[in-house]
Amino acid sequence: MFKTLDSCSVHIVGLGLMGGSLALALRDHVARLTAQDIEPGILIAAQETRVIDAAGSTAEADIVILATPADHIIRLIPTLELRPGALVIDLGSTKTRICDQLDRLPDGVLAVGGHPLCGLAENGYRNAIGTLYRRARFVLCETTRTTAEACALAEALVRACQAIPIWMDRTQHDHLTAITSHLPHLLSFGLMRLAMQVATEDNNLYELAAGGFDGATRLARTSESMVTGMLSTNAEQLRAVTARLRDQLDAIDALLDDPGALQAELAMIVAARRSYTADYGERLIT
Amino acid sequence: MFKTLDSCSVHIVGLGLMGGSLALALRDHVARLTAQDIEPGILIAAQETRVIDAAGSTAEADIVILATPADHIIRLIPTLELRPGALVIDLGSTKTRICDQLDRLPDGVLAVGGHPLCGLAENGYRNAIGTLYRRARFVLCETTRTTAEACALAEALVRACQAIPIWMDRTQHDHLTAITSHLPHLLSFGLMRLAMQVATEDNNLYELAAGGFDGATRLARTSESMVTGMLSTNAEQLRAVTARLRDQLDAIDALLDDPGALQAELAMIVAARRSYTADYGERLIT
Repeated sequence: MFKTLDSCSVHIVGLGLMGGSLALALRDHVARLTAQDIEPGILIAAQETRVIDAAGSTAEADIVILATPADHIIRLIPTLELRPGALVIDLGSTKTRICDQLDRLPDGVLAVGGHPLCGLAENGYRNAIGTLYRRARFVLCETTRTTAEACALAEALVRACQAIPIWMDRTQHDHLTAITSHLPHLLSFGLMRLAMQVATEDNNLYELAAGGFDGATRLARTSESMVTGMLSTNAEQLRAVTARLRDQLDAIDALLDDPGALQAELAMIVAARRSYTADYGERLIT
Repeated sequence: MFKTLDSCSVHIVGLGLMGGSLALALRDHVARLTAQDIEPGILIAAQETRVIDAAGSTAEADIVILATPADHIIRLIPTLELRPGALVIDLGSTKTRICDQLDRLPDGVLAVGGHPLCGLAENGYRNAIGTLYRRARFVLCETTRTTAEACALAEALVRACQAIPIWMDRTQHDHLTAITSHLPHLLSFGLMRLAMQVATEDNNLYELAAGGFDGATRLARTSESMVTGMLSTNAEQLRAVTARLRDQLDAIDALLDDPGALQAELAMIVAARRSYTADYGERLIT
């Protein structure tokens, strides 16, 4: 018979925004909740406020959740001390290289790749909220260590934090999120890097910035370790979609001297963006 | 002696988001407020709700405000019927080509280029609000038709809607806003255009979009006529800053295989973005 989530001891590696928010969402749904973090002060705070039961370790847990940046997760997986039958789930923002590592875990250990599509521009445990995962899509990727029990437990965990599970191939995930997430981060950082250069040439630059600039550079407030993991572990797909984005800029550029054609082209894009809002709502990263 | 704003008859050409919001902000600060719009229903609504006193015409006004897309303003200026001594101010998002046209107005007509740095993603008169200009920077550009009286009246108008006047050279304005506004619009439209293509290849794309994508494509909800005016009338500067943005993407791309160097670079950008928020606040385009 399969384990049920409420009988499991869960250990979270990394109590940042994602791990901390998951802890808050899971605390009443699991038998025991433990965690580790490189900052001792955060662990102490989480224990004192009873968000977690104790510090604990991966070796004692039925479910181990990896909630550190993607590049760190890749290095961490081969070093994990795990109980036979334990389930490993990660929250990394890229999936191919992480799932390739999960595939190599010892026989008898279970593993599912995960990526919850939620976040806030302000990272860290102090910004963690128990409702962060609510209504978010939570991608799950099969590995060679994914059994029926692993599927059931992973889905139970996703539903316990009120997110929506979506099973998807790791390569497909990395291709699609390269466009919906990684490229937007790259553009935001690239635009802010340009602004920093131009601001040294003309210090009136930021005086002329308003909501459009703020929104376009908002992702450049995201913690550099998280973004480093995201961009560096999906470099190939990111480069491919960046090349395609350059083609889009060329296509619009070619219309700049023909306002009629430009307006017709932009109208199609506005219509698609508004229809996207109508279908999916509008989410703010604040 | 100079005219004072409260003795002036003001006529607004174009009752969209910008013109409509300006009407709401100015109505108690001027002697008479009139307007014209291509949609008769909007003019009727504005009169019935007493936002404006009557339809009126440019030929009757002491101050004429041009609140249509930038490319339309350029075509409109040579056709304006104006009273001698009347002041023309535009609200166009680019300034060089508009001010070049204002320079050619008849002797005895006054003119100041203007660009209020505010807006909402949802355009149109129905979204107009009297507080849109409050605390916004409002760029003013001198033309060959700018006298001391024109300066005083333009500044009075800016202050009446609670915005902050900033005098600036037209070329400098177009260079800086190419980075803070026009390029962000181009990137947002380019990213959404890419998403439209990829969504036809894999209909799971939008399922994997969340706050990051929504924010990065939010400017692609802006009315196509406004954006067409913005991009097509500043094509040269926009192309120059787009080339510089491509260099930024190359610079970040070159670090993708060296996570340590990438993280150090991203950390500098995050620090600059957070310090920008600390200095200027964070404005949402909603």
